[in-house]
Amino acid sequence: VDPISRILETVHRELAGERGGALADYIPELAGADPDRFGLAVAGVHGTVYRAGDAGEFTIQSVSKPFVLGLALAELGLEAVLARVSAEPSGEPFNAVSLEPGTGRPANPMINAGALLTTSLVPGPGPAERFARILAALSAFAGRPLTVDEATYASEHATGDRNRALAHLMRAAGALTEPVDEVVDTYFRQCAVLVTVADLATMAATLANGGVNPRTGTRVVGERAAGHVLTVMATCGMYDYSGEWLLRVGLPAKSGVSGCVIAASPAQFGIGIFSPPVDERGTSVRAVLAARRLSEAFDLDLVRHPGLSAPVLRRREDTVPATVLDLQGELDFAAAESVLADLLALPAARPLVLDLTAVSRIRPVAAGLLTATLADLARAGVSTALVGSDTGVLTGGRWFPRRADALAWTTTTTNGGRT
Amino acid sequence: VDPISRILETVHRELAGERGGALADYIPELAGADPDRFGLAVAGVHGTVYRAGDAGEFTIQSVSKPFVLGLALAELGLEAVLARVSAEPSGEPFNAVSLEPGTGRPANPMINAGALLTTSLVPGPGPAERFARILAALSAFAGRPLTVDEATYASEHATGDRNRALAHLMRAAGALTEPVDEVVDTYFRQCAVLVTVADLATMAATLANGGVNPRTGTRVVGERAAGHVLTVMATCGMYDYSGEWLLRVGLPAKSGVSGCVIAASPAQFGIGIFSPPVDERGTSVRAVLAARRLSEAFDLDLVRHPGLSAPVLRRREDTVPATVLDLQGELDFAAAESVLADLLALPAARPLVLDLTAVSRIRPVAAGLLTATLADLARAGVSTALVGSDTGVLTGGRWFPRRADALAWTTTTTNGGRT
Amino acid sequence: VDPISRILETVHRELAGERGGALADYIPELAGADPDRFGLAVAGVHGTVYRAGDAGEFTIQSVSKPFVLGLALAELGLEAVLARVSAEPSGEPFNAVSLEPGTGRPANPMINAGALLTTSLVPGPGPAERFARILAALSAFAGRPLTVDEATYASEHATGDRNRALAHLMRAAGALTEPVDEVVDTYFRQCAVLVTVADLATMAATLANGGVNPRTGTRVVGERAAGHVLTVMATCGMYDYSGEWLLRVGLPAKSGVSGCVIAASPAQFGIGIFSPPVDERGTSVRAVLAARRLSEAFDLDLVRHPGLSAPVLRRREDTVPATVLDLQGELDFAAAESVLADLLALPAARPLVLDLTAVSRIRPVAAGLLTATLADLARAGVSTALVGSDTGVLTGGRWFPRRADALAWTTTTTNGGRT
Amino acid sequence: VDPISRILETVHRELAGERGGALADYIPELAGADPDRFGLAVAGVHGTVYRAGDAGEFTIQSVSKPFVLGLALAELGLEAVLARVSAEPSGEPFNAVSLEPGTGRPANPMINAGALLTTSLVPGPGPAERFARILAALSAFAGRPLTVDEATYASEHATGDRNRALAHLMRAAGALTEPVDEVVDTYFRQCAVLVTVADLATMAATLANGGVNPRTGTRVVGERAAGHVLTVMATCGMYDYSGEWLLRVGLPAKSGVSGCVIAASPAQFGIGIFSPPVDERGTSVRAVLAARRLSEAFDLDLVRHPGLSAPVLRRREDTVPATVLDLQGELDFAAAESVLADLLALPAARPLVLDLTAVSRIRPVAAGLLTATLADLARAGVSTALVGSDTGVLTGGRWFPRRADALAWTTTTTNGGRT
Repeated sequence: VDPISRILETVHRELAGERGGALADYIPELAGADPDRFGLAVAGVHGTVYRAGDAGEFTIQSVSKPFVLGLALAELGLEAVLARVSAEPSGEPFNAVSLEPGTGRPANPMINAGALLTTSLVPGPGPAERFARILAALSAFAGRPLTVDEATYASEHATGDRNRALAHLMRAAGALTEPVDEVVDTYFRQCAVLVTVADLATMAATLANGGVNPRTGTRVVGERAAGHVLTVMATCGMYDYSGEWLLRVGLPAKSGVSGCVIAASPAQFGIGIFSPPVDERGTSVRAVLAARRLSEAFDLDLVRHPGLSAPVLRRREDTVPATVLDLQGELDFAAAESVLADLLALPAARPLVLDLTAVSRIRPVAAGLLTATLADLARAGVSTALVGSDTGVLTGGRWFPRRADALAWTTTTTNGGRT
Repeated sequence: VDPISRILETVHRELAGERGGALADYIPELAGADPDRFGLAVAGVHGTVYRAGDAGEFTIQSVSKPFVLGLALAELGLEAVLARVSAEPSGEPFNAVSLEPGTGRPANPMINAGALLTTSLVPGPGPAERFARILAALSAFAGRPLTVDEATYASEHATGDRNRALAHLMRAAGALTEPVDEVVDTYFRQCAVLVTVADLATMAATLANGGVNPRTGTRVVGERAAGHVLTVMATCGMYDYSGEWLLRVGLPAKSGVSGCVIAASPAQFGIGIFSPPVDERGTSVRAVLAARRLSEAFDLDLVRHPGLSAPVLRRREDTVPATVLDLQGELDFAAAESVLADLLALPAARPLVLDLTAVSRIRPVAAGLLTATLADLARAGVSTALVGSDTGVLTGGRWFPRRADALAWTTTTTNGGRT
Repeated sequence: VDPISRILETVHRELAGERGGALADYIPELAGADPDRFGLAVAGVHGTVYRAGDAGEFTIQSVSKPFVLGLALAELGLEAVLARVSAEPSGEPFNAVSLEPGTGRPANPMINAGALLTTSLVPGPGPAERFARILAALSAFAGRPLTVDEATYASEHATGDRNRALAHLMRAAGALTEPVDEVVDTYFRQCAVLVTVADLATMAATLANGGVNPRTGTRVVGERAAGHVLTVMATCGMYDYSGEWLLRVGLPAKSGVSGCVIAASPAQFGIGIFSPPVDERGTSVRAVLAARRLSEAFDLDLVRHPGLSAPVLRRREDTVPATVLDLQGELDFAAAESVLADLLALPAARPLVLDLTAVSRIRPVAAGLLTATLADLARAGVSTALVGSDTGVLTGGRWFPRRADALAWTTTTTNGGRT
Repeated sequence: VDPISRILETVHRELAGERGGALADYIPELAGADPDRFGLAVAGVHGTVYRAGDAGEFTIQSVSKPFVLGLALAELGLEAVLARVSAEPSGEPFNAVSLEPGTGRPANPMINAGALLTTSLVPGPGPAERFARILAALSAFAGRPLTVDEATYASEHATGDRNRALAHLMRAAGALTEPVDEVVDTYFRQCAVLVTVADLATMAATLANGGVNPRTGTRVVGERAAGHVLTVMATCGMYDYSGEWLLRVGLPAKSGVSGCVIAASPAQFGIGIFSPPVDERGTSVRAVLAARRLSEAFDLDLVRHPGLSAPVLRRREDTVPATVLDLQGELDFAAAESVLADLLALPAARPLVLDLTAVSRIRPVAAGLLTATLADLARAGVSTALVGSDTGVLTGGRWFPRRADALAWTTTTTNGGRT
């Protein structure tokens, strides 16, 4: 078995005996859950899902919120969504009623009020179409057709006074424009969608992967929308524990009262965890512990310094015909910046060869800085050539690597040839 | 001139005409500031500072908060600090009075109450020693000896009723244990420290650089402490605008009422901006606009997907004597994970050569996953060899690259010699 | 014309030109009101109503709250009502959402949340019966059959999101047990009942008169219930202006967003005022001014000292056969207490004659104190006789004046005959 | 023994075994109190004090607040005081920090913030003079020279962080203009003044008696100021229990954390109770129970209907020369109003004699209504005469009874003679 699965199994084994928390009890479907159920999954961005423990279905509850937010962002764009729901962490629990004075905007899309509003933003001539779109989106995130647990939906529908209250408050403030009954009905359905930990891990990995489902290869939402969802999860996803969670676990996350939690590491993986007993915040006790252990095991953190890397300038040769700068690794701002000094100090009389063969990735900012500098050199009379393992493009004064073949660079020249 | 300076100059030129905001007026020293002052600086993690506009000094005000937090974290560790001050974004303004029921803990170290408490945590037999330590730390972050503006300190001292109130409230709740007068006095001094935009950029770059000042090479705080400061800045640094800021600017940041703002991009750079007119939140109007432009220009975001990269597996050769896997770029979780399948599918009969010559950085998680897998292969009888450009070490079942020469890898073998 | 009507006419004339305030605009029926309508009425406790200005109908709105509270108190008693709705002034506006933590009890029956709950307490097998009871009670308070303005009811029904929200919040907290739709529907109907200023004055006078409608002579609620309603109006009736109102106007009061206000002076009169333009609290601007003028003109205040009165001991004669104490005026605690010293100093050998011919009222506490003292004297061997203008009763050690003929006292003796 | 003392002794005996509550523990002087101490006193408005139980001294604490408010009202007037401190019940505990947005005004003078502000309003060139005035006023309310418990003052001074915080908050908001240290020092001294239950009862009786100390006969504050203090006590005196207290006890009251409580019945009496164990609101447990029993025993309530009284028109004679209306009891609005109809129906040809011999008190509103009506009759040609037991005055169209001899009326005529 692979080491990732082994880590999951270790965490599962060590935490299975944890007895903290209690079943959510406001509807029979949650109160009657089996407190011993416990499953974990990690989905990588290349399409593999690793699992341990319970593989069965449960209702997604509030973990639906970031994905419906993604759908709304994809349909309407960031500005249109922010105009209707703020994105400020409120330091308040999931069911807080405080709305922005004047506008009635809920604090953020991760609390119930904001999630109700986000749901209402999903376009649809009517509630049936709106929910159809939401179910289709959740299914696309998961990579398989999802269904609704009708008993849970019916229970939420019968007892959802607080959510109805939030919707009426927002409607009274002019923030919610759709009919309350339709919106809460759609929201209750969305919360009752059945998923497995593998589904949740895949859904989170889709966000981590810039909006493309790594298992199906389908783009579900745009890269910016996926990034915005992760940002909102980072600041607001764990309600009034969001700040400490980001310090301790280090990953954007979201919890649901059925006992499920997702977390995502941008460009790396998605996590899905499920264990019904929840703490007083409505967050699964075992899931919090498991997420901390996985965070340590995978040593990832949104804002941690990545440690030392090989120098970007692998080699410099000042041969007779030209100066050759051989770069390596990932060209980000810091890497590009460190090359600038060398470039700016080049004598005008000598051609420059920039060898990118060993470069694995070029961030746009690095492309911009290098392109601008090369253009300056060209204006100053320096003859420059870019070498890659395949053909790239330099157009409009800005250099764009060809992406068709995943940035395998080839030789190119900016000024006269070099073969 | 270099392209980074050009970007700064463009932003400076375009925003110099902005007339929004008003001078903070609660003390004469701020009310009498020149509203036309406007400076920007970017400090890279290799020690270069880029600047445009005003290069003079101003008082640091609340931008001192993250650095004193860093000092407290470095001295006491995360748990001891969190025991005294929470890290939750509160959705409240800088001078909010709400403390955690029961403990009196302030919401986070970026609001005044939390900053006062953080200041009180800095060890020192007395207030003079405490402030000496703080001034030394701020100076180390900036890379030069900083001084206090006595007039501003005296004014704050005379008018700081709200901060005194916060301190008394925390002392009444048992959260603050040091004498109120000493703590507020130290805090007023810390806020009156004089800095330039170059100082602020360097200070932020020190956080971005994992706690090592990129200009002086001095380690000011540990890597984890630096990361924790950036995390707290990400969720709480801009008060009740933190969520939207992270969506729009994408970087951990902090503002001060004198009109200064810092932002940091982990492992990339620090930004310092100064322009006195502030909005109703006490944040510099030009600085907010400038930060958004720099964020767009540098295209960086904490949670954005980094885009495509070259495949980690540059080449596979199944030659007669062995299978050679030639890896490239940065080995993070996703890269390591993508190699696992190949490794696990190797036939036992064939030796494996893992060529890391073109690898620019190995994250600990990747080292762990690869090491575990190589150990499995070894147990299964596969003979494996690691090739780098220099000697690395594999000990205790875990592979650690030698860092002395900045991860230039050389050949090594796990199982007898290399062919 | 009588001087009371003259005062009303003067106030009406002087305030008709007042142009402050604006029409409530959340439903067309209120937004379309005639801002020049302005009427005042005072109803005395003997059944006369004095009026000036507009005599037409308008919807009662929140002024229905104290009367439905009176109905609930009459049906269930104070304890049962307090168990469901608190009676604390909240310092908050009429539509505040804060409920008591744990119980969900609304702060008091004068804010919307508390009024919705109070309405739900009115017994009735169903909503139709509940509203029938409420309409009957409001009509009994007014002394004529009242009706509902169907257009206003329909508008409130269509736009009442905030009230629905409050009801759902209370139901979510377990405070409200009746179905939300039924309760808000009944509440909207109760707010849409049509009244005139004469009706409102009579309704308030019924509370002032201990629960008996002074025009019809019908007891609508018990004396204690009427007193409790006035107490709640005193502390909570004017929302977050209640404290200053009681200082400036001095009377329990209640306002409605249609522009109506009631006030009541216990045992004296009720006031009804109507003028549609309201301030930001939803209280009629002209009504506040008019109430202050009427309060000054009638010089009444709940807690004002009543000024000097004639001494309770009109005359003392120490004649040969007996000591005669001739009392006058109202016997309250202070009057009775001032007689005690005289009584306790009486020599045992001398009979006592207590002449109550000039006493106009005896409060129960005075009756109790005098009865106890007379019993002590009797035990000590003092022969005592009570003299009134008609027959009173002394039974069970406690003296009760006959009320049949409105306390016209006659001679009686406690111990043998009278000389 | 008199029946009032007997009631006090019964209540004392029945509640002495009550073991609820706990000693306030924030300073040693309160924490070390004897929990068995329990005393009650009632002071009548004629100067007698009735007592039961503990007669010793204790610190007055927050019960000083209404009396310092009375002093401020007497010195500055209602408007000047209200401009600086609001009078709204806040529904919040005694140490709440919420101030009015914009002005920083504390909610009311009964919570600590408002009391600190009220103390700062007492004129004095400096803090020593200010406290001297306060101590003199408290002593005048009590009728004896009071002193400060220096140990309690010193403890409060050392630990009063929350009160210092409130003062700094108000100073930061511009609400408090005096130096914080001076104001809190004066406030701590005022709270440490030593009193007995007899003192407290007398102080409350002084408020009940319109500002005149009933034992010394000294006017301490004006009648309006005394009434305003009682009004503020009625709505705000018992913090977030004020509403229910007024329903259950029915009297304006104030509690102090040392375990003392005062209550006052306007024109009747004052109560002082002391028993150190307090509930979670800081109110003496035995005192609350005792106040409820006394309220029932004395059957008094601010807003209760007083019950039936003898008809104001004792007798009407239509003799040959004139119509004689013989009035009795207290002439308030209701009594005067009931006579108006008779007066207005009089034939012009017949003289009127209004016999006030049996009237015990005339409220200003009744004097106004009767005077206006008599003036109308005079203009209509009716000859009228007022008969009292002594000489009254009719001047300027308004009739004022002579008060020198406590409303003993004599004959007067308005129009021509009658001897």
